[in-house]
Amino acid sequence: MTQIAGLPHATISKAVADALSEDLGLVGDITTNATIPETARIRATITARQAGIVSGIEVAHAAFSQINAGTKFHAAKHDGHAIAPGDGLATITGPARAILTAERVALNFMGRMSGIATLTRDYVNAIAHTKATIVDTRKTTPGLRAFEKYAVKCGGGGNHRFGLFDAVLIKDNHIAACGGIEQALKAAHKRAGHLVKIEIEVDTLKQLREVDFAIADCVLLDNMSPEQLREAVNYVNGHALTEASGGVNIGTVAGIAQTGVDLISVGALTHSAPVLDLGLDFNTQE
Amino acid sequence: MTQIAGLPHATISKAVADALSEDLGLVGDITTNATIPETARIRATITARQAGIVSGIEVAHAAFSQINAGTKFHAAKHDGHAIAPGDGLATITGPARAILTAERVALNFMGRMSGIATLTRDYVNAIAHTKATIVDTRKTTPGLRAFEKYAVKCGGGGNHRFGLFDAVLIKDNHIAACGGIEQALKAAHKRAGHLVKIEIEVDTLKQLREVDFAIADCVLLDNMSPEQLREAVNYVNGHALTEASGGVNIGTVAGIAQTGVDLISVGALTHSAPVLDLGLDFNTQE
Amino acid sequence: MTQIAGLPHATISKAVADALSEDLGLVGDITTNATIPETARIRATITARQAGIVSGIEVAHAAFSQINAGTKFHAAKHDGHAIAPGDGLATITGPARAILTAERVALNFMGRMSGIATLTRDYVNAIAHTKATIVDTRKTTPGLRAFEKYAVKCGGGGNHRFGLFDAVLIKDNHIAACGGIEQALKAAHKRAGHLVKIEIEVDTLKQLREVDFAIADCVLLDNMSPEQLREAVNYVNGHALTEASGGVNIGTVAGIAQTGVDLISVGALTHSAPVLDLGLDFNTQE
Amino acid sequence: MTQIAGLPHATISKAVADALSEDLGLVGDITTNATIPETARIRATITARQAGIVSGIEVAHAAFSQINAGTKFHAAKHDGHAIAPGDGLATITGPARAILTAERVALNFMGRMSGIATLTRDYVNAIAHTKATIVDTRKTTPGLRAFEKYAVKCGGGGNHRFGLFDAVLIKDNHIAACGGIEQALKAAHKRAGHLVKIEIEVDTLKQLREVDFAIADCVLLDNMSPEQLREAVNYVNGHALTEASGGVNIGTVAGIAQTGVDLISVGALTHSAPVLDLGLDFNTQE
Amino acid sequence: MTQIAGLPHATISKAVADALSEDLGLVGDITTNATIPETARIRATITARQAGIVSGIEVAHAAFSQINAGTKFHAAKHDGHAIAPGDGLATITGPARAILTAERVALNFMGRMSGIATLTRDYVNAIAHTKATIVDTRKTTPGLRAFEKYAVKCGGGGNHRFGLFDAVLIKDNHIAACGGIEQALKAAHKRAGHLVKIEIEVDTLKQLREVDFAIADCVLLDNMSPEQLREAVNYVNGHALTEASGGVNIGTVAGIAQTGVDLISVGALTHSAPVLDLGLDFNTQE
Amino acid sequence: MTQIAGLPHATISKAVADALSEDLGLVGDITTNATIPETARIRATITARQAGIVSGIEVAHAAFSQINAGTKFHAAKHDGHAIAPGDGLATITGPARAILTAERVALNFMGRMSGIATLTRDYVNAIAHTKATIVDTRKTTPGLRAFEKYAVKCGGGGNHRFGLFDAVLIKDNHIAACGGIEQALKAAHKRAGHLVKIEIEVDTLKQLREVDFAIADCVLLDNMSPEQLREAVNYVNGHALTEASGGVNIGTVAGIAQTGVDLISVGALTHSAPVLDLGLDFNTQE
Repeated sequence: MTQIAGLPHATISKAVADALSEDLGLVGDITTNATIPETARIRATITARQAGIVSGIEVAHAAFSQINAGTKFHAAKHDGHAIAPGDGLATITGPARAILTAERVALNFMGRMSGIATLTRDYVNAIAHTKATIVDTRKTTPGLRAFEKYAVKCGGGGNHRFGLFDAVLIKDNHIAACGGIEQALKAAHKRAGHLVKIEIEVDTLKQLREVDFAIADCVLLDNMSPEQLREAVNYVNGHALTEASGGVNIGTVAGIAQTGVDLISVGALTHSAPVLDLGLDFNTQE
Repeated sequence: MTQIAGLPHATISKAVADALSEDLGLVGDITTNATIPETARIRATITARQAGIVSGIEVAHAAFSQINAGTKFHAAKHDGHAIAPGDGLATITGPARAILTAERVALNFMGRMSGIATLTRDYVNAIAHTKATIVDTRKTTPGLRAFEKYAVKCGGGGNHRFGLFDAVLIKDNHIAACGGIEQALKAAHKRAGHLVKIEIEVDTLKQLREVDFAIADCVLLDNMSPEQLREAVNYVNGHALTEASGGVNIGTVAGIAQTGVDLISVGALTHSAPVLDLGLDFNTQE
Repeated sequence: MTQIAGLPHATISKAVADALSEDLGLVGDITTNATIPETARIRATITARQAGIVSGIEVAHAAFSQINAGTKFHAAKHDGHAIAPGDGLATITGPARAILTAERVALNFMGRMSGIATLTRDYVNAIAHTKATIVDTRKTTPGLRAFEKYAVKCGGGGNHRFGLFDAVLIKDNHIAACGGIEQALKAAHKRAGHLVKIEIEVDTLKQLREVDFAIADCVLLDNMSPEQLREAVNYVNGHALTEASGGVNIGTVAGIAQTGVDLISVGALTHSAPVLDLGLDFNTQE
Repeated sequence: MTQIAGLPHATISKAVADALSEDLGLVGDITTNATIPETARIRATITARQAGIVSGIEVAHAAFSQINAGTKFHAAKHDGHAIAPGDGLATITGPARAILTAERVALNFMGRMSGIATLTRDYVNAIAHTKATIVDTRKTTPGLRAFEKYAVKCGGGGNHRFGLFDAVLIKDNHIAACGGIEQALKAAHKRAGHLVKIEIEVDTLKQLREVDFAIADCVLLDNMSPEQLREAVNYVNGHALTEASGGVNIGTVAGIAQTGVDLISVGALTHSAPVLDLGLDFNTQE
Repeated sequence: MTQIAGLPHATISKAVADALSEDLGLVGDITTNATIPETARIRATITARQAGIVSGIEVAHAAFSQINAGTKFHAAKHDGHAIAPGDGLATITGPARAILTAERVALNFMGRMSGIATLTRDYVNAIAHTKATIVDTRKTTPGLRAFEKYAVKCGGGGNHRFGLFDAVLIKDNHIAACGGIEQALKAAHKRAGHLVKIEIEVDTLKQLREVDFAIADCVLLDNMSPEQLREAVNYVNGHALTEASGGVNIGTVAGIAQTGVDLISVGALTHSAPVLDLGLDFNTQE
Repeated sequence: MTQIAGLPHATISKAVADALSEDLGLVGDITTNATIPETARIRATITARQAGIVSGIEVAHAAFSQINAGTKFHAAKHDGHAIAPGDGLATITGPARAILTAERVALNFMGRMSGIATLTRDYVNAIAHTKATIVDTRKTTPGLRAFEKYAVKCGGGGNHRFGLFDAVLIKDNHIAACGGIEQALKAAHKRAGHLVKIEIEVDTLKQLREVDFAIADCVLLDNMSPEQLREAVNYVNGHALTEASGGVNIGTVAGIAQTGVDLISVGALTHSAPVLDLGLDFNTQE
């Protein structure tokens, strides 16, 4: 298996093993075991039924390998590639039972990941004429965050923080509890490690003016109009990164990007991307 | 916590613990810990920002309880209830740190599950004038199948098999390997347990006529036109259940249901349902 | 390792790893490590000390492989084969330390599984002149259900449901809670998925007459005399499967089978089968 | 739950959780959930259908508690108690769904453990007029060794080593690899920790005479006749413990014990004990 | 249990459960179970035998609670408190068996964590007259990083990155592979998320001058003399954080701090801190 | 990988996988992935920066193999070898990304284990002119006991019991609860298995005289002066092993050993050994 930057082997192995266990239970694929001879061999191709961006090739690879180490997997496309309907993504050769048993888990991972990569690419393309970056959020599927954030990168997007542990993001409730933006930033600066970035969410330009850029690395401009965003970007003037969020969709994203913000975060990338339609075609009985 | 039929406690506990671990890492919510006093208490309400069907109330409950057993959770709506924008679904009272830390995991589960329940209800409503049942598929999110199939039931749908282990579903490759429909059915009948149902997929009426209804409990009529479906239903004539699949969307589903099929399976229920937009509103500092 | 229908690789790997961990603790085989040179190699044969039916060859294989991937395992018999005292079942070649360390776990699995297969075969042989099938129950060893149900199949028996999740079995308490057999069957039919079979337990012919065969796929005739069973079978007349249980032992089983029931469930297959006596013989120091 | 010497809480919790997961899958008890109202309450009694010795009361307790913490468990008998057919062992009160769902796992553990305790007591009684102790072996069910060795103690027996890690037991292959009994004992003495006992297996009196009792704490006299055992005991003369093994059954055990050996190990205690027949009786709908 | 910032409950529970399992095996505390009556109760105090800084009170609490939920734990000191020999840190009341069984695990955690906190405080005190912060490294005990980094904070230090995943630290091999400092920084800037800080290690002032402070948030000045450090700090002039590492010990740390560096990382805090001597005193048999 | 006596493969695999997961999180080594080309290969040598005793070579091996099975590991030194500064311990060849990613985990294990082996060897050397053995205690790092006790053996020491489960050690609280030394020994003898050794701690010669050497295999002479130890050794006169503990350090250990005790237990071996300084040198870009 190829090493994937952003998705350690152990992460893939564990998730694929859990998914196979979910699908096989303790008994396995009773249909296949009843109807397919143990010695039958097959060649199958993961094929696109829809245009999009590939993500998860090595995850599919792991699904077939785990069921039977004797399967051979040849990737024709790699993560991040654009595909057209009918394109073959990977060919699997080996025992028919193994390939049929692993099929659904492999496609469930790849379809979902490629769906995210494809939607991300749409957003990325929509703002290609600007300097902004599309980033994800923590609105991910429980248990699959690493896979979904990896898929966003396959689509050309960037990753926001991975969890509550690797960056500070101060929101309205934190500000209220501290008694103000200044105090919240000071509290975070005092307790966060020196290698932890600090972002703060503001809803208004008035709030923005209270931000101390010696502490804040990034400001999240939430639910602002393009006009407000533009004004905010001017005010910040490069002293921190600017991130727009709220009200972002494929129709509005270009207008938002043109305000000059550095980042646009889109929850829909991971919480509402439709699956990319992929299938397994069985070519020839070997 | 209320006992939920269809979602054992241990299933919920394990998935919620894993999701919290994914979000907290080894360090926890560094923003909240830096800015919110340990003794602060808060009251928060899970609120609908969109109309839909609730699913996952007890999963959200578990998220808050696991972070801090001292949080109190009061459900105003229950799974399966229809909600309107602005409706409060549940109120959580307790330490502010705990509530803020658990918020995203609780909403990620509920939003996704309610999204599935809502989409399912749309399909169910579209065919309410027929006797057909909307059912799900195995095209579910890896690791969350139990939650997603439960959500389909909250939306009024039914569940197809849970995995490869609990029912036989003979598809084209199985038929080909056995040398025909008759042989495949016999092989399955011989090896499957007496409490395991057998379904077989057919693509044409010609194939359908080869099915032995003494063995097949259900026939999957794949990618047939409404006319073909109608003819197939007539042919089967109650000797087995009939299930339609392929080409099903919210526009075509009524026409399919009117052909008299018993079941319509819809992969999109679980692989492409957009999240239902839910938020956590903070009412009053207690 | 050969693919085993009915016992996925991951199921075997996990159980064997747990058993080895139970036997080795954190320190391993202190006797072997103290007395056997690291470089010593050995050839050993799993040998029958008793006649019976083999089950668990691939489980033994996994035990040796997990301790040392350099061991070679050659199976002379396969699961389901009949063996006589003195027969060699499999030969293992490799480092002496590894083979001695894994010996007990390999034999504990195989002895137990072969014991179940052997007892099952006795029951199967006793009713070979009838059309009935011997099936197991859920009275299995906690943690080993998949292995024990697989062993029953090696002995020629069939499997009842795997757990509480994959088939409905309505017993007296369920009937009482619903207010009657008719209501219980209706409740089950309404809530169970369309691919889930429904069985109902009845103790008397009077109860049997209340069963709706449009819903019940199978009736469990509990603790009935052969005369009652015969009458029940006549009454059901092929509209459902009939299963006898209670009071079944190797002396009574033929009489029960001759009543015409389809299935006879025997708890003793898994809860009281004595181990089959197998040993590891060390042939030659290589 | 009462603290049990010999069976730590964590050991019980883990095994019970795994067994429940095995029985419930991801969906739970579909029969009970379909037919029993969520609010129904019940009182049930674990009842002996056979005379024997109790073992596993707290394990059954854990099964009910894990399914629903609201069940109440009252033990009428404790581990080690002798019971007669009809005796109530414990009463469980609480939600009917929970009690019915946990029933089989609770009984599977208790039936198996009580079966071992009962068989052990038979052996213990048979030699009560001697000073010998009945002990178990490592021929236990994979995954349940702690439970089975605990059950042996409930029956009045003692425990041999727990695994390969906590005592040295030198067998013929170890002796052969070292070049003799003397060398094997020296090797073990040199490498084993000072708190690890050393036992050595001998098949003949000639071998016994080579044993250095300054090193060996115990000698295993394998497959010797009563005459040989008596002679061996005389020879050892209290300088080490003596253990008889091989050819032990309920008919021969008294004769073996009368030779004066300290210990008699019986593999059948754990590898071939039939289950003790226990049932759950439902007393009154509360 | 009190909520601990920096050490989520689940992190504590898991590590304590694993440590108890390591110490108890499957059988538990055989000495205590053999000699202490089940009903005996005891009061014990965790007492300092040495001056130092407390860390791990809630971890000790968890050890006693997990063995027996009926133990009561009262903390007299809290994490970060300075203690003198003879000081009581916490009092535990409850079943004698439970307290004796959990003792060693509780002390092993607390002794180690308090040892780290104590050593950290020594370093922190040595540079109290400067503005520098003492921070840890990734040279931690495998499996205990969260506990050790938390202990460093209890001692008054700060945390460096938690792992390879939450910050970029470019070292000589990375620079070499990229072809230079400029290229390495650009590569990191391009691929790291916008909320990930970037630090780069330099060994000479010449290297330092190649660093682009628009990208680097922090420079690690490795193995530089105080003079070099001072010159480096002047050069950086607040455009990035400066961190000194290498050759730091309790004798040299003040001189290093006086050069004006922001941070001094000390591997010894976690890889070589001696345990703080704590004991459990048994006050009165209740 | 070479088989290691005293450290089963599964023990190593699990601990290394956990440590890698702790260091990589879900994302992996973001620095290395951003700066090192996927195809770059490297050769690196684990090198001693300090004299000492090696321990953990195979653990380091596992760290590199788990990250990438394509790395090659050649050991130049083996566990137990003495090394001088500059000595190469092992050479790793393979993908640069994998080697850099696994480096810290490999060194964290080896540095810690070698530190323990080195400190043990110092104690062993200090008493080489006596017949006493240096042994460890249960004051080990939670989660790493097997590794630390193995390292003590690499240094030439012996192992005390592994946990609470494999030997009886009666301390003052146990004696008090039983009402005296005689009663405590009897209670232990009655309940412990016949292959479990019994040790008892005494603080005075008066207590020692109450010990029944027919039961006690070993006496722990706690905090006695050399004179008392000598007198105790004379009194015991070979009827049990004698172990000294308390007040042992590198300066006092020879005097203690010269009293004739069999064993000297030293908690510092595992609770306070400083790490042995090892580094990874990168030789040549292949």
